Amino acid sequence: MMHTKIDYQKWYDQREKTSLEEFFTYLRFPSISAQSQHRKSLLECAKWVEAYLNDMGFTTERWEGEGHPIIFAQRLVDPSAPTLLFYGHYDVQPPEPFDLWKSPPFEPEIRNGRIYARGAEDNKGQNYYTMLAIKAFLEKNPHAKINLKYIIEGEEEMGSNLLEELAPTKQKELAADTLLIVDTGMGSRENPGLEIGCRGIMTMDITLTNTNTDLHSGSYGGIVYNPNRALAEILASLIDEQGHINIPHLYDDVVPLSDEERQVIDTSFDEQALKQEVGQCALHVEEGFTPTEANWLRPTLEINGMWGGYTGEGFKTVIPSEAHAKISCRLVPNQDPKKIYQYICDAIRKRLPNGMQADFIPHGGGTAAWSSPSAKSTQVLKQAFEDVFGSCAIIYGGGSIPITALLAKHSGAELVLPGVGLPCDRIHAPNENFGLDQLAAGFLIIATTLERVAAVD
Amino acid sequence: MMHTKIDYQKWYDQREKTSLEEFFTYLRFPSISAQSQHRKSLLECAKWVEAYLNDMGFTTERWEGEGHPIIFAQRLVDPSAPTLLFYGHYDVQPPEPFDLWKSPPFEPEIRNGRIYARGAEDNKGQNYYTMLAIKAFLEKNPHAKINLKYIIEGEEEMGSNLLEELAPTKQKELAADTLLIVDTGMGSRENPGLEIGCRGIMTMDITLTNTNTDLHSGSYGGIVYNPNRALAEILASLIDEQGHINIPHLYDDVVPLSDEERQVIDTSFDEQALKQEVGQCALHVEEGFTPTEANWLRPTLEINGMWGGYTGEGFKTVIPSEAHAKISCRLVPNQDPKKIYQYICDAIRKRLPNGMQADFIPHGGGTAAWSSPSAKSTQVLKQAFEDVFGSCAIIYGGGSIPITALLAKHSGAELVLPGVGLPCDRIHAPNENFGLDQLAAGFLIIATTLERVAAVD
Repeated sequence: MMHTKIDYQKWYDQREKTSLEEFFTYLRFPSISAQSQHRKSLLECAKWVEAYLNDMGFTTERWEGEGHPIIFAQRLVDPSAPTLLFYGHYDVQPPEPFDLWKSPPFEPEIRNGRIYARGAEDNKGQNYYTMLAIKAFLEKNPHAKINLKYIIEGEEEMGSNLLEELAPTKQKELAADTLLIVDTGMGSRENPGLEIGCRGIMTMDITLTNTNTDLHSGSYGGIVYNPNRALAEILASLIDEQGHINIPHLYDDVVPLSDEERQVIDTSFDEQALKQEVGQCALHVEEGFTPTEANWLRPTLEINGMWGGYTGEGFKTVIPSEAHAKISCRLVPNQDPKKIYQYICDAIRKRLPNGMQADFIPHGGGTAAWSSPSAKSTQVLKQAFEDVFGSCAIIYGGGSIPITALLAKHSGAELVLPGVGLPCDRIHAPNENFGLDQLAAGFLIIATTLERVAAVD
Repeated sequence: MMHTKIDYQKWYDQREKTSLEEFFTYLRFPSISAQSQHRKSLLECAKWVEAYLNDMGFTTERWEGEGHPIIFAQRLVDPSAPTLLFYGHYDVQPPEPFDLWKSPPFEPEIRNGRIYARGAEDNKGQNYYTMLAIKAFLEKNPHAKINLKYIIEGEEEMGSNLLEELAPTKQKELAADTLLIVDTGMGSRENPGLEIGCRGIMTMDITLTNTNTDLHSGSYGGIVYNPNRALAEILASLIDEQGHINIPHLYDDVVPLSDEERQVIDTSFDEQALKQEVGQCALHVEEGFTPTEANWLRPTLEINGMWGGYTGEGFKTVIPSEAHAKISCRLVPNQDPKKIYQYICDAIRKRLPNGMQADFIPHGGGTAAWSSPSAKSTQVLKQAFEDVFGSCAIIYGGGSIPITALLAKHSGAELVLPGVGLPCDRIHAPNENFGLDQLAAGFLIIATTLERVAAVD
């Protein structure tokens, strides 16, 4: 007979004190991947994770590169049994500025039912409840017919360089039926959602150059084309009044979500809630789509930075020689960041005043990864969420986790992103925290999912 | 009988060695108004100028404020005689970066017929030849029926604060028939010109604010109106395809130069020369005007700076809460910088997306000051230029010297700007220099002008 949520709740309650001690040990490592002085802590942290997985019966290997090692763990029982691949990371964001923390970032503390520490949610919290749930499941089902794989990297907060490099060469190790990226949020407590996709991204720098030196606007104003003005004109041309991106071919490869799928997902949008959060502000949404649809399901273009000329105190009457912008496009499945980059370069070159020069630098990119709302993995996780929270919306993410698409591709697995993060967790910020209730809920979701997938009797 | 150019050339040649020693003494004061550690040198320099003018028979007074004193000198002989008011300044720009100077900036040195020193042209050189010419004139005409006034300030390179403050209260002292701003250039050696006007200016900051915090472009892209985009759209709307400024009422107060006047001035434009100087570049000139006319005679608008979002290394996928620009308008006579500022604020507010906020900060401004090509003072100075150079074009300046309009207004005088500066003088830059030939030419222009005005017989 399948073990139920109640069985796991009991298991969890009995062990909570020990588990929290274990979790706090994990949180105490200052495993800040972006700061080289923490190299030793990262290695100790990786070792702790490795030992934890070994104790649960996983065989582990270390994938090493120039940076911090990846722990790859697996427990293979039967090639014909379903295979789950979990993803997490043991590295954390820098905690600075320290003075805004109420308690030290690497001395976890519980206040009002929430654990405060760097990594409390992102990703040690979600990583820990996942490992704990697997441990509980294996205790209850030592002979479960399910293959489990876990990849825990130490460079997520600095670009996942090693995993990006190795993923294409590790298709055999990564091969799975379901990929669970346990590193995301569920929207809100009131209306919890299971995320089943995230957008891709293309990022680039643009530089317009006109003269070989800055000029005096008295001597040359009215004669020389100011590159700030040319840049403003070009940037203004990139999105039309209807909110469509005005770049030839940009939508060529878009494969929209089917009408059926579009109806299944919850794209409700609470404008008042948004304005309470970020202030009274102007919105602009692509015609034909709700705000949530535009954010999840459509390519969008943003000017993430722009600068040119004098930007300091006071005033300088300069016509700059150059003007710059950083723009990005969020992408949907089947859009190739490299092609999108080329379309934008071509469009800008065509719109450039005669005599001016445009140069481009591509930055990082990644493709989108979506599962279908009707996919088997989606359905199993949705049941687990409903079981724990009473309801579960199907949601997509507007953001991009480039490693997600890569892992989905090289594992051949169906993708789900069953995180239980909430906006109040303050990830990447001072006083990051994670609710004891979220920790328990995440544990139950993973444990009951394992039960369902293994179909233990 | 009037003394001629040849008479003054002789006088100059006989004294050249002594004069250069005198001039070098003037150049050796590090009278850098923007650097407070040079306060003592500024006072010593002012004292030297004062003594020089006293020796020539001027009575002097010091106008003092918080900064560096203004030397006001006059030699009044007869209320019915013509009165000339000269303007110059004894302060100089900072010399940094020192390592680019071939000889130390305050140790003047002659190389290839040019004097190298900070201030060699701007303004000690032009100031010195003017004083020397007056000295020569008074030696030759001790009883000349001409009233002479000289205002030499010590804050030109830091904004002329004291003179701006005092000018309205010194109308009696400033009253004159002709105001000679000897602090400008003559265009080129091949085609020397007498400048008879400069444009006004309006400068301002614009800030667009949308949300109360920067947002993640993954979570909010496609929903929130990016203020960088709104700013680009607004800036792009400020000038139309024909090069006209697209701000209601902006041209309301423009009183154009008459067709007759427009024909007298030399608005030839050498596109090849410009491109040799600043590189292959895009030009954009208002329809209906030559490039030179657009620069001298038309209001223009420039985006001197713009910035918003992430502008550092790499990439950050931010939707900024704010976007900023610094814009300026060059103005023609009868345009009021305060009104222009208001027109721009109004136009931008109307073009703002609903829900976004615009804030404005006015910076310094000043009105334009033009003389007519047919004015008596223009004609007298033109003759002097022709006498010395063989020809003289009438030119205007595209730049703005706010103190010029103020002095013209409060002196009630006809304005001329009879400088002999050339682009190769490198004012404000390392290795500033002034040709011995320019020094002599300037001397002759001022001396023969005095002869003509005094009409000594």
